[in-house]
Amino acid sequence: MANKKIVSRDVDFAKWYTDVVAAAHLASYSNVKGCIILEPYGYLIWEKIQEVMNKMLKESGHQNMAMPMLIPESLMKKESELINGFAPEVAWVTEGGTNKLEERMCIRPTSETLFSDYYSNIVKSYRDLPIKYNQWCTVMRWEKETRPFLRGREFWWQEGHTVHETKEEAEAETRFIMDNVYKKLFYDYFAIPAITGIKTKSETFAGAEYSITIEALMHNGVSLQSGTSHYFGQKFSKAYDIKFLNRENKLEYAYQTSWGTTSRMIGAIIMVHSDDDGLVLPPKIAPIKAIIIPIGSDEAVLELANSYKEQLEKNCIEVSIDNSDKSPGYKFAEAEVKGIPVRIEIGLRDLEKGYVTLVRRDTKEKIEVPYDADIVGTVKNILDNMQKDMLERATIHRDKLTYIATNLEEVKKIMDKGPGFIKADWCGSPLCEAKMKEIKGLKSRCILENSKPLTGKCVVCQEKARDLVVWGIQY
Amino acid sequence: MANKKIVSRDVDFAKWYTDVVAAAHLASYSNVKGCIILEPYGYLIWEKIQEVMNKMLKESGHQNMAMPMLIPESLMKKESELINGFAPEVAWVTEGGTNKLEERMCIRPTSETLFSDYYSNIVKSYRDLPIKYNQWCTVMRWEKETRPFLRGREFWWQEGHTVHETKEEAEAETRFIMDNVYKKLFYDYFAIPAITGIKTKSETFAGAEYSITIEALMHNGVSLQSGTSHYFGQKFSKAYDIKFLNRENKLEYAYQTSWGTTSRMIGAIIMVHSDDDGLVLPPKIAPIKAIIIPIGSDEAVLELANSYKEQLEKNCIEVSIDNSDKSPGYKFAEAEVKGIPVRIEIGLRDLEKGYVTLVRRDTKEKIEVPYDADIVGTVKNILDNMQKDMLERATIHRDKLTYIATNLEEVKKIMDKGPGFIKADWCGSPLCEAKMKEIKGLKSRCILENSKPLTGKCVVCQEKARDLVVWGIQY
Repeated sequence: MANKKIVSRDVDFAKWYTDVVAAAHLASYSNVKGCIILEPYGYLIWEKIQEVMNKMLKESGHQNMAMPMLIPESLMKKESELINGFAPEVAWVTEGGTNKLEERMCIRPTSETLFSDYYSNIVKSYRDLPIKYNQWCTVMRWEKETRPFLRGREFWWQEGHTVHETKEEAEAETRFIMDNVYKKLFYDYFAIPAITGIKTKSETFAGAEYSITIEALMHNGVSLQSGTSHYFGQKFSKAYDIKFLNRENKLEYAYQTSWGTTSRMIGAIIMVHSDDDGLVLPPKIAPIKAIIIPIGSDEAVLELANSYKEQLEKNCIEVSIDNSDKSPGYKFAEAEVKGIPVRIEIGLRDLEKGYVTLVRRDTKEKIEVPYDADIVGTVKNILDNMQKDMLERATIHRDKLTYIATNLEEVKKIMDKGPGFIKADWCGSPLCEAKMKEIKGLKSRCILENSKPLTGKCVVCQEKARDLVVWGIQY
Repeated sequence: MANKKIVSRDVDFAKWYTDVVAAAHLASYSNVKGCIILEPYGYLIWEKIQEVMNKMLKESGHQNMAMPMLIPESLMKKESELINGFAPEVAWVTEGGTNKLEERMCIRPTSETLFSDYYSNIVKSYRDLPIKYNQWCTVMRWEKETRPFLRGREFWWQEGHTVHETKEEAEAETRFIMDNVYKKLFYDYFAIPAITGIKTKSETFAGAEYSITIEALMHNGVSLQSGTSHYFGQKFSKAYDIKFLNRENKLEYAYQTSWGTTSRMIGAIIMVHSDDDGLVLPPKIAPIKAIIIPIGSDEAVLELANSYKEQLEKNCIEVSIDNSDKSPGYKFAEAEVKGIPVRIEIGLRDLEKGYVTLVRRDTKEKIEVPYDADIVGTVKNILDNMQKDMLERATIHRDKLTYIATNLEEVKKIMDKGPGFIKADWCGSPLCEAKMKEIKGLKSRCILENSKPLTGKCVVCQEKARDLVVWGIQY
């Protein structure tokens, strides 16, 4: 009894995805081309993600703040790689009120320039360092093709920008964010077994010395770049003149990082976990953990529903009751499409027999428990198991779609079956990278670290391999 | 021993204000003209305000969501009053990437148009109503003169937009937001005795049937419009075609409201409460309630400091320790300039005598308590008293600067002494309103409701009065 508003995932993955987004009321199209409306339920998930990340970031000494949304062209141009990277895709403000501006300004596509300009004013001494700032905002990139959450002209994100007195400290920050914030977020909260590694030169962020990326594999085998952490070295500090008196009392250019994740993560959660009935949310990120659905309006039923609600709320488990006059079947489908982890059905006949039914969203498993059982413990238990099982299932699926290839023929054969993660040795040449791209658009996702080459020979040219790379096609 | 970075409030109020903003690291100027950088401490206060308002809004059934930041010109133009009101002061995006846009778009100065356009798509039946949405974002207005928090090209705000099936319900919402959210926020959290009332026609929001405003009186007697709640009736629903099937199964235009408050509220908190030593924050809105300053580094001192911190944190009182190697005097001044309500000084000599010293930020009162006293209870008590006393002091000051006038001579005499709230009867004529403006820019702040006229004669023309109006000069 799949949801009628949703085409089957196996029939048309792309349509299934947009159907789920629409049916769960996560986002809808606006009359502003390429921009979406984040609907209340989608925004609730975004608020939950912010809550989790803010806790992690604040505990590790990061501070939120906010920069202007406009960047004067001259400021942007100071770091030439960045402007070259973003110039083709920014929105330009050229008029203010009734006047033409003397200098046009772009709506931030990212804020390295503004942060660096600011840091050049406030950083004087090593005593001022480190500075670890983060901002939550939207940014704008003038994309041609857009899809809700995955690619849009305007999207929601956080961007962290830090300044350090040493290379070592800045590099440690770059790693810390990836390993202790982003990876933790994906594994422990999203139940997504994403892989991490270094980007190849061609995929490195404009202006960065190197970029570490977190890449998730969607259910259909397509990769989604889901977050990046960049080490800048002194590139920006030299362009924007961020100098400080070091411990030897000498002027030195500072070391910087930046890192970001976006509302695209909501797309990842959908495309890894959801099914033909709609959204499946990992309990830890679900804004509503349990929904109570009284069947009929008998007093005993309503009383028990309210008592459950009270008990769950007292234990900080977000719960709601659907008391509307819609049919039970409609309510069940609605709870499913929204991916609420646990559904508690209370019917009079069941109650008279002494039990209520709990339904787990991911497996649809029905669990009958005595009506006077420990409801808090029971729900908590289901949530914990579901969170664990979702990561396990996603890991098995990822591993099933992870292949090894030693030459182009093997790569082609794998890709004929469908996309996935392909592990293959690479010599380091952009030419070989380009050759891979000819096969259905395969791109390097990341260079695996601490991994030995498979054969020692480049999958393309068969010359000496430098790195073990994971390849895939991307959203 | 006033803070050296801050000019005295009595000497130069305007400079005192910007000095406090800078010294407390609330905001700083950016290289983007007219736009500020919200620094971490300023942003923490903004997060606190968001937390308090989100709780109030969510408990009363409002939902957060997010709209695009751009508005196509044609969409904006559908409601002609709105475009006329905002056209002179919006920023226009005319180029995207390397192309000139076919239609220019403005960065939202406010989002009635986007919400109304959206509502016209999703509202079908009375069963879909009410819809009570809110968004937190920044908006842009191309102001010429700007001051941190008070007036800026870009500022932070929340904007609520609701749709209802009846006039009564929409009007009740307009009132609810003013009386149960904004007024509560100002009185109970900001300790600011702001007044509320209806705006005169000339001051009403473009497109609204009427606007209710909350007006706060700054320490120097200048008024600050601090939040507004608008009743739109069917104006926007007719312009944007928001129709629904009512309970009689007939198509009817919906009734709407919108309401907003901005980062300007931080300016109000500063200008009502702060002093020559810097910020004074009402405890309920202070991101850090207490700071512990160990004097020296004796083990007994540090141990007690850590024990206090633990006890306070366990009771959800935000506390920090200043363990830096700066001098005690520097640390005291720093805690003062940031407006931290309670400072706990722990010195070895005092400790040996058995006590520690707590200092209350607003009164500078020093309170010596036995080192083993109930620190949580003591701090809570100070916070409660301070919150209460701050509102009381602000009320006394407001009342001192509130005058009554029955003719223009009296108005002039009052204004010669300095600005304040002037209560005076008004006939309702815009001409008389204009005459008042000739006196140092006096404007109607709001029409007091449920108040009888003073004399029954207009303060300007001496004809029959219609309303009792509060007049003042504004930021």
